[in-house]
This record gives sequence, structure tokens and C-alpha cells, in this order.
Amino acid sequence: MSQLTKITQEIRPVEESWLEKAAERQNRLTKPPRSLGKLEEIACRMAAIQETLSPRVDHKRVVVFAGDHGVTEEGVSPYPSEVTAQMVANFLRGGAAINALAKTVGADLVIVDAGVASPIPAVDLSNQAVQFVRKPVRKGTRNFTREPALTEDETVRSILLGYEVACEAKQAGVNLIGMGEMGIGNTTSASAITAALTRFPASGVIGRGTGADDETLARKQKAVEQGLQLHAPRADDALHILRSLGGLELAGLAGLCLGAAANRTAIVCDGFIAAASAAIAVRLCSPVGDYLFAGHLSTEPGHAIILEVLNRKPLLHLEMRLGEGSGAALAMAIIDAAVRIFVEMATFESAGVTDRQEVPGKVSQ
Amino acid sequence: MSQLTKITQEIRPVEESWLEKAAERQNRLTKPPRSLGKLEEIACRMAAIQETLSPRVDHKRVVVFAGDHGVTEEGVSPYPSEVTAQMVANFLRGGAAINALAKTVGADLVIVDAGVASPIPAVDLSNQAVQFVRKPVRKGTRNFTREPALTEDETVRSILLGYEVACEAKQAGVNLIGMGEMGIGNTTSASAITAALTRFPASGVIGRGTGADDETLARKQKAVEQGLQLHAPRADDALHILRSLGGLELAGLAGLCLGAAANRTAIVCDGFIAAASAAIAVRLCSPVGDYLFAGHLSTEPGHAIILEVLNRKPLLHLEMRLGEGSGAALAMAIIDAAVRIFVEMATFESAGVTDRQEVPGKVSQ
Repeated sequence: MSQLTKITQEIRPVEESWLEKAAERQNRLTKPPRSLGKLEEIACRMAAIQETLSPRVDHKRVVVFAGDHGVTEEGVSPYPSEVTAQMVANFLRGGAAINALAKTVGADLVIVDAGVASPIPAVDLSNQAVQFVRKPVRKGTRNFTREPALTEDETVRSILLGYEVACEAKQAGVNLIGMGEMGIGNTTSASAITAALTRFPASGVIGRGTGADDETLARKQKAVEQGLQLHAPRADDALHILRSLGGLELAGLAGLCLGAAANRTAIVCDGFIAAASAAIAVRLCSPVGDYLFAGHLSTEPGHAIILEVLNRKPLLHLEMRLGEGSGAALAMAIIDAAVRIFVEMATFESAGVTDRQEVPGKVSQ
Repeated sequence: MSQLTKITQEIRPVEESWLEKAAERQNRLTKPPRSLGKLEEIACRMAAIQETLSPRVDHKRVVVFAGDHGVTEEGVSPYPSEVTAQMVANFLRGGAAINALAKTVGADLVIVDAGVASPIPAVDLSNQAVQFVRKPVRKGTRNFTREPALTEDETVRSILLGYEVACEAKQAGVNLIGMGEMGIGNTTSASAITAALTRFPASGVIGRGTGADDETLARKQKAVEQGLQLHAPRADDALHILRSLGGLELAGLAGLCLGAAANRTAIVCDGFIAAASAAIAVRLCSPVGDYLFAGHLSTEPGHAIILEVLNRKPLLHLEMRLGEGSGAALAMAIIDAAVRIFVEMATFESAGVTDRQEVPGKVSQ
């Protein structure tokens, strides 16, 4: 715990003065004021995070944490647990959606085994640009309908794993991190966490995840309700919520958020599971939210609810519900564009373009 | 007219069978069915447009048509007409938002003087990647509150200019075109066109454009109402609407849409003005809509209304209202990603990942 406390104490909010300086520059660029909408807010936030009027997004990295969930014993997913390991192998071979997406947006891809239960099929990594970190704290969580998913020690060690991955990114020169996850059963954990953090009823936060049918959905809701009843988590005790309901990849992602904020690196949230992890990080240390972008809004009903905790509006609305960091990767392209416009555009003065303030006989604003 | 008729007759809708073949491939990729949301629809449409299950978006081009509007005499914009020419020079020097955006998304940039009224400041083009086409049919439109903005001959010649620019793009290997425009006063033309095409009242389609105050907004509404009263356009006579209300850059963009569809090139709409131009093209020839993506939804109230005519949902909701092709350029990055995922992802069979249909004792769908 003391190491975690030390980390949360070193995180500072971004300075308002940088947001103001950046907004002032936005108004001098050759465009009508505020005509770039959310792109202007994005660039201002990036300027404040990096404390410069020349922010950079020239090294992007998507980090996918993978882990398994004991609660899959309850029949909460249409896919078997083995798919987590199979999909990790697919990431490493370059065949998943996130591989194509990371390449398209020019991002590194790091896959972290934070607790995969099944053996990961052997993959020849020599030809791949993907980095693989194997530091599972344990092989999958316990079934949270019967006992806590993790011990406190396992939870903290998983958070610290994520923190270290963020520190390594900083050392590599990464200036924008995307959050990704893979874990059969993890929408069940994320739903339970969301209900615990927000006090929404389980029925309001649960969705079909990867495509649950009505019976699976009913089992999922029952599992979440059992977990909440068994552990009786308090909304303000994020660490207890996380250890009670899992999972290892969610703890890793929460640590990644803490590490990004500690290193003043911007981080982009992905879908529902990533958002639940980010919400844990923000509850552990509220200034973390200043470094966070909500990449997109998925179709999972709990996602919009947990984004309220993060107090962030999603950048994309593409009805995605895949995870893997797919929405985060796409949003990174938007953030990249917002920053490049901010840095590269001419001002009215430099371009010799008449600003409306200079128009003779101009109408009053 | 006969040349225009010939063009509209050569345009064919995309084939349903290609949409179906593409959807079938989507379901074999290593992801839960439909989990990529709108990205799946985008890739299927691209496959149908290009008639292949390996569609490509490896050569993007944003084309910005610039033109002036006689209706600016009525005080409908906070900026003077000269800004159109100044911004064209800014595009050519690389200082505008669209320059940074086109670079970010890896697109060519072509600027077309389709009817700029003021002299364009001299720019050294030797170091620039921007292509400049100077083929103005006339220097600005007439004031549509007093007379038709264009003659029929001027309108058709402007449409044919856009058509030719699309044909040149095809010859250069472009497989995704973005629509952009610059023209002080052109939200007034676009508002009048939208009202004429949809029969919405002027008050419902008019917005603040580049930032009109209440008085300017009132003048804008009056101008639109005068234009509609004077020319009494019929909703089904798109050519008459276009020639009555302008403008030269809108006619060019309508021709660009026709040319893209004729050449089976996908085209991305930008904001309100581009959408009004695309709607003219679709009214002239309805299969054009099959080749069209709605890049984003701007804050201009007429935009959502005219998108209904196009029957297209916008890809991005970023509260932008800049024009220049800025929203189209950003959307091109999304389309690029959607296509790359579709082409590059592994199938369940090839990746050795268990599909849920294969799960022993699986729950029924």
C-alpha cells in the first residue's frame, strides 16, 4: 500500500494557466473562433498536459492488458475462457483488429499478460512489431460470486505492473498511450465495478458484451448481484471494489492510468472495461482524470454511466464494442490531428488574413 | 445539358451482392459479430464501391473548391469577401487547418479556384505539396436576392469542372476523395439550397456560420427568404435551385460527387455546404448517394436537415464548423482504419481462435 500511496501523492493536476494560454493561441489561428469544436479542447488539454504550446503526439502506444476471470464459471460469456489466450496469440501474430488499427494510426503495440489462465499458443515473435510483456500476478482471478477475485497484495502488484508499463512508455518517448484489454468475462467484472462505484442497480449497467443471449445475460446479472451482495463494497473504497470484483487486467489498466498521470503522459480510454479501470484510478487519485481522454462511446449500457464518473465526453460514437484498445486507437488519430492543427496552423497575423475584429465597419459581436 | 445528362446516365448504384459478400467476410473475422459497429458498414460499402473484398484506401485526396458570393452585399457574414482569396493563399502556403489535417491523414490537397472574386495574393508554390487548379467560370456569383446567382451555362460549366477534377483523381489512382470548400457567404447559399430542397422554412436551416451575431443572422435569414421568394425554386429541379442560389464552389462540389460516382470512387462529405452540394448531386442522380460518406455533423442547424436528404449518418460528432474539408479529412482516417481492419484481420479459422458457434454445449443464439 505504501508504494501505491507514494504514487498517488506524486500526481499533480494540470495547470489552468496552460489551458488558458492554449485557448488564447487557438483564437489567433486562421479560423473562426471555436470552429474546430472538440478538436480545440483536445489540443488545449494536450498543451496543458505537456506544459507547452507546441505539444507533440509523435509517439503513440496502445497497451493491451489480458487476463482471465473466475466468474466465467457462472456462464456469463458466449465464449470459453481459452479464447483469451487464443486472442493474445492472435495479437502477437498480428491478426486482430487492434493490429490493423495500431498500424493505421502509427502506434506501437504492447501486449501484457497480466493474468491469462490458459496456455498461450506458441507464436514466432521474430517478425512482429508487437512487444510482449509476460508478468502475470496469477493465472486468472477467483470467482467473485464466491470469494474475493484477488487478494489485496495481488491487486496492488497488478496495479504496480501497469504503473511500470507507463513508466517504460515515458522512457521510450511515448507521448500518447491508448488503453486496451482482452479478457473473456471482463464485462461482468466491469459491470460489477460500475454498479459498486456508482450505486446504479446491476440491471442498469449490464449489457450483452461480446454478444450474450437472454439466458447468458440473466446469468451475468445474477453473478453481478451475487458479487455485490457478498462483498458489499463501499463506493469510496476503490481498492476494495477492485480486489473484490477483479480483474487482473483491470488492475493493470488502473495502474497504467496512474503511471501515465505520474509521468504527465496523456492517456486515451477505450470502451466499457477500460473506462471502469480508469474510474478506479480516478477514485484512487482524482487528478488522474486531467490526463485522460474518453476515446469513444460503446454500445455497452454501463459505458455511458461510468463516463459520468470520469466526467469526460467521448470523442467517437461509432457503435463499437470490441475492446482491445480499438476505440482508443481510432481516437488517437483524432488527438494527433487536433494537436497538429494547433501547432502547424498560421495565425491571422502571419498569414495576412483579415480577422473579423479588423473588418472596417464590422458588426458588433 | 446533354453532357450532364450523359454523365448522370453512366452512374450505376453499387451492387447489393457485394455488400452481402463483404458482410459475410465481416462475420468470419476474429471479433464478435458486429462488434466494430459503423466501421463494419464502412468497410462493406467500400468493398461494394470498389467491387472487391480487398478494398484499398491508399491514395486519399481532399479537394477544396473556392468561390465568392454576390449575396455578401447583404451583410450576411462577419468576414469580408476578400478573405476567400486570402484563405486560398493560406491554403497554398500550407498555413490553414486543412493543410495540417491533410498531412496528418496522408491525403493530397488540391485547391480549385472555381470563382474567387478578389485577386489571390501571390504565393511561391515551388515548395508546396498543394496542387492549384485555376479554372473559375466567373469571379463570384451574382447577388441572389436580386437576380439568379448564375446562368444555366455557368452552372453546368462549374459542375463539369468538378466532374473533371474527379476524373483526374481517378487517373492519379485516388481511391478516397474528401470534399472541401471555402467561400465567404456560402452558408447563406447552402441554407437557401437546403430550404429549397427540403421545404424547411429559412428560420429552421439558418445558423451562425463563421460566427454571425444576431443582426447578421437576421440579415442572412432575410436574404434567404428573399431569394426563395424571387426564384420560387421547385424541390425537384436541382439545377434550377443551384443556378438561382449559387454558388460556383457548390456547383463544383456537386460535379465532384457526380464524377466520383461515375468513376466508382468513394467520396466523403464535409460540413453543411459540402452536404448541400452533395444533395444537389443526389437530386440530379440518385445513385450518387451510394458512393458518399457523411464525414461529420457540424453545429450548423441545416446540416442535420440536409443529411436526411442524403440518407447518411455522420461518422464524426466533434462540433466542428470550419469547412475547408476539415471534417471530411478526419473521417477519411476512420474510413482508412475500417478498410484496413477488414482486409488485414485474421479469420477464426486462420487464427485458430474458437468461434462461439464452435463452443461445445454452447448456449443458443
